[in-house]
Amino acid sequence: MSTKKLGAGVTRTDRELMDGRTIRYYDTNGQKREAIDQRNPESQPDIGELRLDVQTNEWVVIAAHRQDRVFLPPKELNPLAASRPGNLTEIPESDYEVVVFDNRSPSLRQPKGEIKIPNNLAFDTPTFPAAGKCEVVCFTSNYEYSFKDLTDHQIRTVLEAWRDRTEELSKESYIEYIAPFENRGEEVGVTLSHPHGQIYAYPYLPPRTKRMLQVAKSHKERTGHILQEDLLAREIKDRSRIVAENSEWIAFVPFAARYPFEIHVLPKRSVPDLVTLDESACEAFAPIAKEVLGRLDSVFEMKMAYIAAWHQAPVRVGREILRLQWQITSVRRAPGKLKYLAGSESAFGSFMMDLAPEQSAKLLRDAKY
Amino acid sequence: MSTKKLGAGVTRTDRELMDGRTIRYYDTNGQKREAIDQRNPESQPDIGELRLDVQTNEWVVIAAHRQDRVFLPPKELNPLAASRPGNLTEIPESDYEVVVFDNRSPSLRQPKGEIKIPNNLAFDTPTFPAAGKCEVVCFTSNYEYSFKDLTDHQIRTVLEAWRDRTEELSKESYIEYIAPFENRGEEVGVTLSHPHGQIYAYPYLPPRTKRMLQVAKSHKERTGHILQEDLLAREIKDRSRIVAENSEWIAFVPFAARYPFEIHVLPKRSVPDLVTLDESACEAFAPIAKEVLGRLDSVFEMKMAYIAAWHQAPVRVGREILRLQWQITSVRRAPGKLKYLAGSESAFGSFMMDLAPEQSAKLLRDAKY
Repeated sequence: MSTKKLGAGVTRTDRELMDGRTIRYYDTNGQKREAIDQRNPESQPDIGELRLDVQTNEWVVIAAHRQDRVFLPPKELNPLAASRPGNLTEIPESDYEVVVFDNRSPSLRQPKGEIKIPNNLAFDTPTFPAAGKCEVVCFTSNYEYSFKDLTDHQIRTVLEAWRDRTEELSKESYIEYIAPFENRGEEVGVTLSHPHGQIYAYPYLPPRTKRMLQVAKSHKERTGHILQEDLLAREIKDRSRIVAENSEWIAFVPFAARYPFEIHVLPKRSVPDLVTLDESACEAFAPIAKEVLGRLDSVFEMKMAYIAAWHQAPVRVGREILRLQWQITSVRRAPGKLKYLAGSESAFGSFMMDLAPEQSAKLLRDAKY
Repeated sequence: MSTKKLGAGVTRTDRELMDGRTIRYYDTNGQKREAIDQRNPESQPDIGELRLDVQTNEWVVIAAHRQDRVFLPPKELNPLAASRPGNLTEIPESDYEVVVFDNRSPSLRQPKGEIKIPNNLAFDTPTFPAAGKCEVVCFTSNYEYSFKDLTDHQIRTVLEAWRDRTEELSKESYIEYIAPFENRGEEVGVTLSHPHGQIYAYPYLPPRTKRMLQVAKSHKERTGHILQEDLLAREIKDRSRIVAENSEWIAFVPFAARYPFEIHVLPKRSVPDLVTLDESACEAFAPIAKEVLGRLDSVFEMKMAYIAAWHQAPVRVGREILRLQWQITSVRRAPGKLKYLAGSESAFGSFMMDLAPEQSAKLLRDAKY
């Protein structure tokens, strides 16, 4: 057990689960976290495999052991609840504020020893161990809540957990990119309803990040500017797509949105990642996050399925040109209708949007909050 | 009205619909197609807008008029049926074999005059008219059928229609890429259950095609070989991922599949596109298509949702290095479970696969057919 002090009065206490995985308690009242995982020990699954798709030069993670993972369990068997007699969960304590633990069925896991993807892979079998980390972030022990229902204080604690994980995972030699995200709603395949997110730490730059890096690099070469700063200036000048704003953050529907509801939330002073956010930006995050997600749920007066993902600068490259942005996308285009990724999007990567970004921004602005 | 002779004894007869759109009847018995569209004339929607996502340098199509399109109508109002008193449909005739007509709510449409996307777009508003074509391909007038239930003769007629459309659309100066595809199943957002596909003709190279072109180009420069031919040789040597094969075609699960069921169907003699397939390849397509889709439906003994898309060489570039392949992907990973594109796939473009490609290939091979 070790305890570490973080920002905003948050302390982190680490414990080991029955199979050797780590659970980290993020607390704001100096709680002692001494509960032992009472479950029977079990062995961890083997490391999966990365395979290179040689037609696109993109890695695919093959994690065949995940096929049998827990799928929408009843509330009384919720594995993300605090433990109680009759339901020993992933969290041995009988209560918690925020916890982050290693995923029990990770797509990517810590490798044995030092490894690095080589440049020359055999054409016939371009594979590599699926090194990386997959972590689960529980936002609250309260099953009924959503991220937007948390207090400012709770969201700040989650933010400190994300920042801490980003900082620590950045030190691992096998990790190139760290992606905290939340999937919400069965429409996006959520298998556990408890309010939680995940952190994927990849041993490569994900395809989208790679592309964003190339584009930002060529923008820098051509104009001398940071792309995301020019983008922010465009939105502030235009204003038609702005959804919410406070002293430190601004939220807008991007000019070329791919989803009926897509919102980018950017700090006004651009930074590479969560770790480099300053105290005032950290303090001002909760109100804008709650406003944006609150407006999203108000548009159709229903809980919207969404994916909320932090795009950060990679660990080792492009830190001067790629900037932090929080990106929320929802596939719901009307109360009874979802947007599906079909032929054009899925097979050819070309997105078709049925709602003009300015209309979408207006719906969000007009939604009661 | 005009009639044109195609391969395999197929004739094409063109007629005009009430709003000026064209419908093309593909027939094998020299039928006269003289029925007039009896519906009230209506005007066509305006052309949509392309917007460049400057963070990825990818076009997004904004087609706001599509939001109200027909959504799972009852069978008696099926707009893809042949017309009968009480249900005047998109097809004025009282029967048909295969028809292709211009989509009533197209994301991309024929522009007025000659247009070409310029190289220098304003950073603040990089837009362009959504020029292109969206066509609907009805495989049969029989509502109950699926593509795999068609006779070899019917599939050959569909193939001739795809080939004819590819050839004709290739001549349009505003079109760079032609993509025939079929979405099947409500799980992939199909809004009309009648067996049909679509053709999207894009005024740009779709993002995935652009990437495939870059990769194939660098493979050619490095090895002197055509990437897809090397890939085919790898699968034939390995055999563990082959699903079906006949004299002209081979079907396999790719080494780095992204979906629980993903099958690539390639002609053994590689060609750039559907038009350049020779007679024996055309004749041998129906049996392998039926086998592959039949096996897919047998795996879990249920109608599988799928996207089946033809990847062709672009109209003007890369014709010597990109090759035709028919790609079928299904999101169904088990009878009660779908694969969703969540955080990793959707926000970062990084795919996680729960089923090893060799397992998936074995399930397909073992499925009764």
